[in-house]
Amino acid sequence: MKDYIEVDEWRIIERGFNPHHNKVSESIFSLGNGRMGQRANFEETYSGETLQGNYVAGVYYPDKTRVGWWKNGYPEYFAKVLNAANWIGIDILLDGEQLDLAKCEVSDFYRELNMKKGYLERSFTAKTAVGKVVKVEAIRFCSMADDEAGAIKYTITPINFGGLLTITPFIDGDIVNKDSNYDEKFWDEVKKETWATGGYLQMRTKKTGFEVTTGQEFSFVQNGKVVSTSAQSIQKEKYIASKIELQAKEGESISIIKYAANLSSQNYNAADLAAKVKQTLVRISAKGFDTMLTEQAHAWAAKWKHNDIIIEGDAAAQQAIRFNIFQLNQTYTGEDDRLNIGPKGFTGEKYGGSTYWDTEAYCVPFYLSTADQKVTRNLLLYRYKQLGKAIDNAKLLGFNNGAALYPMVTMDGTECHNEWEITFEEIHRNGAIAYAIFNYVRYTADEAYLADYGLEVLIAIARFWSQRVNWSADKQQYVMLGVTGPNEYENNINNNWYTSTLATWCMKYTIEIADKVKAAEPAKYAALISKINFKEAEETARFKDIIAKMYYPYDEKEHVFLQQDGYLDKEQILVKDLPASERPINQKWSWDRILRSCYIKQADVLQGIYFFEDQYDIETIRRNFDFYEPRTVHESSLSPCVHSILAAKLGDEARAYEFYLRTSRLDLDDYNNDTEDGCHITSMAGTWMSVVEGFGGMRVREDKLSFQPFLPGKWKSFSFNVGFRGAILNIKVSAQGVQLKNLSGKETTVLVYGKPQLVKANHQLLVEA
Amino acid sequence: MKDYIEVDEWRIIERGFNPHHNKVSESIFSLGNGRMGQRANFEETYSGETLQGNYVAGVYYPDKTRVGWWKNGYPEYFAKVLNAANWIGIDILLDGEQLDLAKCEVSDFYRELNMKKGYLERSFTAKTAVGKVVKVEAIRFCSMADDEAGAIKYTITPINFGGLLTITPFIDGDIVNKDSNYDEKFWDEVKKETWATGGYLQMRTKKTGFEVTTGQEFSFVQNGKVVSTSAQSIQKEKYIASKIELQAKEGESISIIKYAANLSSQNYNAADLAAKVKQTLVRISAKGFDTMLTEQAHAWAAKWKHNDIIIEGDAAAQQAIRFNIFQLNQTYTGEDDRLNIGPKGFTGEKYGGSTYWDTEAYCVPFYLSTADQKVTRNLLLYRYKQLGKAIDNAKLLGFNNGAALYPMVTMDGTECHNEWEITFEEIHRNGAIAYAIFNYVRYTADEAYLADYGLEVLIAIARFWSQRVNWSADKQQYVMLGVTGPNEYENNINNNWYTSTLATWCMKYTIEIADKVKAAEPAKYAALISKINFKEAEETARFKDIIAKMYYPYDEKEHVFLQQDGYLDKEQILVKDLPASERPINQKWSWDRILRSCYIKQADVLQGIYFFEDQYDIETIRRNFDFYEPRTVHESSLSPCVHSILAAKLGDEARAYEFYLRTSRLDLDDYNNDTEDGCHITSMAGTWMSVVEGFGGMRVREDKLSFQPFLPGKWKSFSFNVGFRGAILNIKVSAQGVQLKNLSGKETTVLVYGKPQLVKANHQLLVEA
Repeated sequence: MKDYIEVDEWRIIERGFNPHHNKVSESIFSLGNGRMGQRANFEETYSGETLQGNYVAGVYYPDKTRVGWWKNGYPEYFAKVLNAANWIGIDILLDGEQLDLAKCEVSDFYRELNMKKGYLERSFTAKTAVGKVVKVEAIRFCSMADDEAGAIKYTITPINFGGLLTITPFIDGDIVNKDSNYDEKFWDEVKKETWATGGYLQMRTKKTGFEVTTGQEFSFVQNGKVVSTSAQSIQKEKYIASKIELQAKEGESISIIKYAANLSSQNYNAADLAAKVKQTLVRISAKGFDTMLTEQAHAWAAKWKHNDIIIEGDAAAQQAIRFNIFQLNQTYTGEDDRLNIGPKGFTGEKYGGSTYWDTEAYCVPFYLSTADQKVTRNLLLYRYKQLGKAIDNAKLLGFNNGAALYPMVTMDGTECHNEWEITFEEIHRNGAIAYAIFNYVRYTADEAYLADYGLEVLIAIARFWSQRVNWSADKQQYVMLGVTGPNEYENNINNNWYTSTLATWCMKYTIEIADKVKAAEPAKYAALISKINFKEAEETARFKDIIAKMYYPYDEKEHVFLQQDGYLDKEQILVKDLPASERPINQKWSWDRILRSCYIKQADVLQGIYFFEDQYDIETIRRNFDFYEPRTVHESSLSPCVHSILAAKLGDEARAYEFYLRTSRLDLDDYNNDTEDGCHITSMAGTWMSVVEGFGGMRVREDKLSFQPFLPGKWKSFSFNVGFRGAILNIKVSAQGVQLKNLSGKETTVLVYGKPQLVKANHQLLVEA
Repeated sequence: MKDYIEVDEWRIIERGFNPHHNKVSESIFSLGNGRMGQRANFEETYSGETLQGNYVAGVYYPDKTRVGWWKNGYPEYFAKVLNAANWIGIDILLDGEQLDLAKCEVSDFYRELNMKKGYLERSFTAKTAVGKVVKVEAIRFCSMADDEAGAIKYTITPINFGGLLTITPFIDGDIVNKDSNYDEKFWDEVKKETWATGGYLQMRTKKTGFEVTTGQEFSFVQNGKVVSTSAQSIQKEKYIASKIELQAKEGESISIIKYAANLSSQNYNAADLAAKVKQTLVRISAKGFDTMLTEQAHAWAAKWKHNDIIIEGDAAAQQAIRFNIFQLNQTYTGEDDRLNIGPKGFTGEKYGGSTYWDTEAYCVPFYLSTADQKVTRNLLLYRYKQLGKAIDNAKLLGFNNGAALYPMVTMDGTECHNEWEITFEEIHRNGAIAYAIFNYVRYTADEAYLADYGLEVLIAIARFWSQRVNWSADKQQYVMLGVTGPNEYENNINNNWYTSTLATWCMKYTIEIADKVKAAEPAKYAALISKINFKEAEETARFKDIIAKMYYPYDEKEHVFLQQDGYLDKEQILVKDLPASERPINQKWSWDRILRSCYIKQADVLQGIYFFEDQYDIETIRRNFDFYEPRTVHESSLSPCVHSILAAKLGDEARAYEFYLRTSRLDLDDYNNDTEDGCHITSMAGTWMSVVEGFGGMRVREDKLSFQPFLPGKWKSFSFNVGFRGAILNIKVSAQGVQLKNLSGKETTVLVYGKPQLVKANHQLLVEA
């Protein structure tokens, strides 16, 4: 836990130079625009602790799997997002002495992530080893308006000297992934060029053959005027630069404006990339830094208009929720159905930038409510397009007849993870993908999606579940053996209640949707079942038999759903009775001890109750919450939000708020001591859910939005926007009551505390407290 | 399955050159003398498929652990036996053309492992690319009489030419382990020297700092006479050699005799090694090749006198059992309590040459019966000496109060394995170590061992079990969660019947031995409990409570001990109903599918019944055997022997013989298609058990040996020796009955078919059929 970020409603601020926090700050102050992103590394050389990171969405490398002991079925490769060419680099020499904060006396260090306008600012005064003092101000951003572009304005003012300033803007492609399994370099150089005011470097990934061209164009402003300079081109293996020498006067500023473009062969012919990069550089430099910055502010204003949450009366909470939303917006814009949301976004390498079930279970609700429905549709299509590989993946594990097992971790649809207890057994992810389809359709009413894409995925998933269960002659019921639930502190367990519940729900929902599509779109239905050889009568009969005869563990004494068979054989010491010195158990205990314990990493039974809340009465929910939460250590960033929502549901406002706090400032306060690896992007969507579904009590009920809000004690008000079936509502909860503002041209009826409220187009109304 | 080894009662014979069998033959024809060993690589250069292997017992390297995903508690290193300097090398040039069988036309290839006399012989005729024909005869051995020495006689006869023969005997230390995790080389050179007739190379292992000096001394015989030669010394990094040029005449033989010595800093000061190697070389070369070979035959005759099994009427069975005994003798001689028995002995790198529970469960019975009791005592002392590290290992996993968990895999007492489901959970190994103490004492009556060493180990193991169980409030019994039994096709299961049964047996046995030692050796007892802070009353009370209230899964319908909780939820398709195309499942199925299946890798419940046979009536044994064996795929080399013994016990002679066949020729016929990695040394002891405990029906009953033999149908007779409490008996089973011959000066009473028979010293008697 750290506490060095200054509270501000719109800005993330760090004051003072703390080299040992630097990697944490590099994560927190990350920039991105959905297409590319980067950690907050310094522009100038820095020889201190740093984790260099520049990423281009969708550009990955299949790194050869490294395991201790191979298990049949493991994938040969782990696709990971690559650390790409560094485009921010500007090397500075002061009379030949390199500017490097690790070797200077630094004062007035200030770093700001301006979330309102979407830029990163940094300033400092540095005294070099020989005593030269300079002031530097740098501002940069990844353009949201022009998502292949970025720009930097880097201003140097000699404070106590005049002399020769050598400025070398560069593009460095000779970078490595820190998590490379065999210390390989993943990029080869294709070509490069330099010219008087810039240059580019084109690189190609090994194996996958993605090409990325990264270019720079620069200009100089001295004493308020553009100066023409003469640059010396430098070309090295995987590196281009231009060296400029300027005479600087004491007290007089020199700025370099560096425009960068980053284009990938995903979107252009590789042969055209260099020309396209040059065009982009010409276009953006013609536009100019200030105009680009203004465009950036406008683009962000549009985002915020859509998905800001405003909290009055608690600046720390306000800053935190905005930080979460800001990072989500930086990570994924929903415009490209080949992309997805890595757990660390563009803020680090960990988890390989790949897609997890986080997307469907946590991120979809956020994008469904706060973005155009095409964004979620693209997330769904991403999985639809990977259906073939999910079927291959299931085949590899012995399934057949078009059964699909979506991978635990993936980039392009193939499985990338290699822990047998996860890769082969944490199969509930398949259910989350079906649930996201259900969620999408209930928010958007886009039933056409089901006929065109959704049903095909659902049948493949239902087929998987129908093969994954087996008949227990002993129990005379179907059982599901050898699974790992969301609570990964249990491995290879039998009859995980959550997984079994989700599995039969998938089969039920598949039958329901098959019937619906068959009735509504008979021709499409016929074409589909012929294409995938779906033997409707026989296969649905099997689904129904399983639905009817599935075994779900239940404890008759505690009257709770049992997380898995045998859970109550464990020693039942509650988390509150565990000495603080033993926690977090994932750092303090050996793995087997964790597995034997009753401790739960993240919502498991409660995740199922969260998903299918309507099926359980409030007392059932309470009993299960009261039983499981005290056994939960919340050692996953995805845990507190579900608990916050359920606590709110149960009327326990204090605990709901407590869980919210654990998730909302997770990275800002480096709560788990791991932010240096990157921010917990996917769990940020969970924070949003805590506010909207927790404090706002938002649900979908009878095809309508329903709210059951309460106002956390410290807050004066909070408000958020939600899109639902074409209407956009702003909901503001305050002491006065619940204000509903319809921001769209479509009238809608919502339920507030159970009562229907018609909100006309572009009107507002107050439901008094 | 292969079938190219010629049947012979005393020899393993390969005829014809089969390069694609070469790695298998390299394993099968391996040599060793307990101190050093080697695969049957060729002396001359060979560019074809080969796995080079020279090993020095006890010289290991802690290779850095490689895992995909780290789990708390994993050891940082995996100690592995090192591939050491190659001392057999003799490079041959024929008029400058290298002799390399991969590049020649080879005829009359013959390879023989003479088990009676303990040497490897090879001969062939080779036609080189340019058409030169030579005949080569090579014979070599690792001396049993002088276990730091080896010798080679390598004879070349030009068949169709006369010319310049260049012979370069060398020592090559620039070798690698094929299984190195990070492609590191494990040896550094210390020093080297060459002289007119030899040289040495001294190497040091990285990290562990073992030094090994390997020397050679050579002489030449041409036309039956020793010739003096002038050698050109060659020294390269990690390599020494001497190049000799001789004029060879068509049809005239030239032999090189190469003596080698291999000394390690385990047994000498590193500074003295070079001098000692020189002394050894002087001594053995003075002795001469023929004398050494005669000594070798005598040493082996002594071994065979002790532990041969003679089978009349079935040469293949005779060859097989001798091969097993031969390899066991080559691997471990029991003279050094720092050494143990790697699963592959000196025949390959796999499993790192480390110690597994195989030693206690499978090898101890063999050595107990066939070798001086000090051999088993040394195996026990090996574990006693490692008790401190076993306590440290348990501490790392959260245990305390002197509880010990012996490692799954070890070289020096530290854990070396890194699969959580094995390393942390396959804890039954701890029980096997206690069982070996029990076994040793009942065979030897050496109760002093208990007071001096055994009890201390037993208490530490009992403490572990008493902490590893937990009280299930639900069951109102003690349970043992999260274990892996001998059947490794189940991971992280609850209440494995075998492990739980073994655990309470350990506690019972510990209490019994503690009482015994307390009564017999009160002073030693008092010293011990003070040293280890054993709170007798309190701790034994806890042991007794667990013994009284332990939960063992049992199925009331099948009336069998249940392998683990939930085993009967699995789909119960018997192995016989599994298509052949699906087997072996460990190659055909993904890991999760194996785990979910009912298939058993090796005896699990039945291993427990084998250990504690006396506790179960014959019908219980039969029900469990009839239930579990049909579900067992025997995909461990350790599986068939236990089933053979139990089938024999149940009177099913045909199946007992069938299981015996699967184990006895496992490597000779490359049954599992993996002999190229090395021979299955530890399971060879299981083969011996099949004959003695299976066909011979040997047990210990009421402090006496008991026999219940039967004669397999194909056999005329079989006989074996057993040492027991100072007496040595030869038992011969034939149609006439059971002949008992007392080879020792101590009379003994044994039970034959339940009836006591007194066998006087140096007398024999026949119990008629």
